[in-house]
Parts: sequence; C-alpha cells; structure tokens
Amino acid sequence: MEQRGDVYDRNCPSRAIVDHATGHWGSLVLGKLLEGTMRFGELRRAVAGVSEKMLAQTLQALERDGLVHREVHPVIPPHVDYSLTPLGTQAAERVRGLFTWIEDHLPTLLAAQAAYDTRRAEKV
Amino acid sequence: MEQRGDVYDRNCPSRAIVDHATGHWGSLVLGKLLEGTMRFGELRRAVAGVSEKMLAQTLQALERDGLVHREVHPVIPPHVDYSLTPLGTQAAERVRGLFTWIEDHLPTLLAAQAAYDTRRAEKV
Repeated sequence: MEQRGDVYDRNCPSRAIVDHATGHWGSLVLGKLLEGTMRFGELRRAVAGVSEKMLAQTLQALERDGLVHREVHPVIPPHVDYSLTPLGTQAAERVRGLFTWIEDHLPTLLAAQAAYDTRRAEKV
Repeated sequence: MEQRGDVYDRNCPSRAIVDHATGHWGSLVLGKLLEGTMRFGELRRAVAGVSEKMLAQTLQALERDGLVHREVHPVIPPHVDYSLTPLGTQAAERVRGLFTWIEDHLPTLLAAQAAYDTRRAEKV
C-alpha cells in the first residue's frame, strides 16, 4: 500500500480517484468548495445543471476518498455542511488551476475550434 | 469572443473543453503526450484500456480544441503522428500535476477509503 500509484496502469486504484476528481461533476464540486464550506442546496445551485442524485453520488465518492468532509449539524431541520479536507484542498487547487487556464485561454481555444471546422468544411 | 470563460456557467463553451481535457481518456492522452510525439498504436498501448474508436474520438476532440497536433506523413503505409501543441502542453502540464499528486498521495487516499468503509459498516 505504500507504493506510488500509476494512473496508466488500468488496475491501479488511482484511476478511480482520477475519475472522481476529474469527472464532470467531481471537478466542478472540488473547484467550487475551494471558495468555502457550503450546504447541499447552495452547492447544487452553484454547480449549475447537476441533479440532486448526481450531486449526492459525487459528494459521497469524494468523501470516501478523504477529499470532502461532511458535517451533520444535529438541529431541526437537520443541516449538512460540505467542505474540503486539507487533502481535498490540495487536489482542488490542481483542478482549479486547469479550470482557470481554460477560462483564461477560451478565446484561443474557440479560435482553434473554428479554424478546425473551416479546414474540415473545405475538404468536403 | 474576447470574454473570459466561466466553467460554472452551463452555457459557456469552456465546459466542453473541460470535458475533453479532464475526461477519462482525454486526460490520460494529454498526460501521456507530454512524454513526446507518438503514433496512434503507441498511444493506444500506452493508455491501457482505451478502444480504437474512443482513442480516435478523443484525439479528434483535442485536435479541434487546438491542444493536439496531427501530422500525416505521406509515406506507404501512411503514418500519423500525434503531439501536443504549445497550448496543449500548457493544459497537459496542469492535468499531469493532478495525476502526479494523486499518484504521490495514493496510500493516504486508499487509507481514507478504508476508514470510510469501516465507519459505514459499523453503522449497519
């Protein structure tokens, strides 16, 4: 267990964690929780488009990996907070780095897509 | 078009690029191409588990985003090389940063999973 992972080994358990951290909803949840602790409903509004079921599954996988902390407050009505663990903060910072890069370079990326589509159209 | 992207806006075109760069196969392909130019078959062997069809689709999406360069050599039999563009190298470095972090922290992540499973088993 003390061995380093290898994401290119299809039998390495690191691959499942890559999927949780880079999956469509997992990556958005990690990036959003960098802004601070959030309730389920807040998170659902912040990550536009996620269903209640998908968000619950995503949070559970990230909690199991030790990346997200779930805190149940024993009040009426019950209230549950989600936050990043110190480990989760490290992972989320790396995810956020990629998001920020994509957001910053969006005009260049869209120009590349348009140029590609033009080349394809000329070939037809 | 000169506006910055927002991955939390479900209508922003940055979301599709996030999916290409962080998707299961897309992220593995970007990370692997950081090691250098590769032919299709080499890449398929290096990214264990990917089908021919999925790899072709993944490479096409990354090429359209301007992250991967496809070079066709007009020889017999034809031979096609794939490499990262300068833009793709920047994206791939960020993806690789997350992979390396997961690989380095795998024992801690697996211990968190085991602790979670024990807590759940105790509750049942």
